[in-house]
Amino acid sequence: MTGAFIVLEGGDGVGKSTQAAALVEWLTARGTPHVHTRQPGGTPLGASLRSLVLDPATGDVAPRAEALIYAADKAQHLMQVVEPALAEGLVVVCDRYVDSMIAYQGAGRALDVAEVEQVADWATAGRRPELTILLDAAPGDAVAQIAEKDRLEGAGDEFHRRVRAHFLHLAEAAPERYLVVDARLPITEVTSAITARVEQLLDGD
Amino acid sequence: MTGAFIVLEGGDGVGKSTQAAALVEWLTARGTPHVHTRQPGGTPLGASLRSLVLDPATGDVAPRAEALIYAADKAQHLMQVVEPALAEGLVVVCDRYVDSMIAYQGAGRALDVAEVEQVADWATAGRRPELTILLDAAPGDAVAQIAEKDRLEGAGDEFHRRVRAHFLHLAEAAPERYLVVDARLPITEVTSAITARVEQLLDGD
Repeated sequence: MTGAFIVLEGGDGVGKSTQAAALVEWLTARGTPHVHTRQPGGTPLGASLRSLVLDPATGDVAPRAEALIYAADKAQHLMQVVEPALAEGLVVVCDRYVDSMIAYQGAGRALDVAEVEQVADWATAGRRPELTILLDAAPGDAVAQIAEKDRLEGAGDEFHRRVRAHFLHLAEAAPERYLVVDARLPITEVTSAITARVEQLLDGD
Repeated sequence: MTGAFIVLEGGDGVGKSTQAAALVEWLTARGTPHVHTRQPGGTPLGASLRSLVLDPATGDVAPRAEALIYAADKAQHLMQVVEPALAEGLVVVCDRYVDSMIAYQGAGRALDVAEVEQVADWATAGRRPELTILLDAAPGDAVAQIAEKDRLEGAGDEFHRRVRAHFLHLAEAAPERYLVVDARLPITEVTSAITARVEQLLDGD
């Protein structure tokens, strides 16, 4: 068995952190060497970039600047964290990846989605996850779980509807590389669906 | 007379700041409304991005991440400074622009130049200067003028030779939009060459 790149995606408040923790616990119990990381902010440089973009004190960020900053976070994270871990044969569990950038900066904002995809592809040198787990919920169901809102999360329901639709669109375009789970299901049911699919992936079924 | 976008380019230590100041003084004396700005770092966000990349404490920055961060600086600077000034009919004098990004991140590093150009074009939505003034000098002549070296400036002579060659290559490809000046000439001679060309541009000769 070699390494695998597994990404958790979805809107804000759908339970990505909870499910990533559960998946990591499952991998640990199974004795599978792994690393748990995140985008944006999974490197020191990335954390600084993320703070800059999300800090309300930064003021208006040009949509292209925002997309490019998130792309820079990805490039750094790939070089420092993801590629070395995969090269060592580890399973990489990553909260958010390119889909979030495309959904938030492309579908959510006023940018051309194909152009944002091109920037994201270049940033990541084309590295794609073996499996993306999309935790899906309607914006109203999900955002209610979040107490403190930062700039992006305060962007309104219509924005979050477009983001959700784009996540689903990406999943539909490549079903063999996606698992879409209804995020409103009980937490343990979501976890079971995820571990069942990851087990298939790691055992090569 | 409407606004114009004028950029000063060249390696480190060739006198860009000195000549930009002289050009601004000439525009002031002439009564031409203008703004003097810079890339990277011409906006608060850009200044933070520049500090992050140049700070030795940041450690290794992935080449693609570095290029994307400089591209983000450009996108923000265009939106916040350059486009509003041009829309008001001002002359924009800018220290460094896309050519620096292409020369330093593309020709200087291990990235594909055409791909870096594509990222820079997207960042700037294709906005090009009416005139780029390239202050040209061999790396040995120029770097000697700099006392304090940051990360990029410490990158070695071979790097700076490739950067210089690429600046010249860009200028040769579009001579009508470039003025190449030998940066080893006396300061006042360089200034005269620049103001003569800018006068032509602004008077529409």
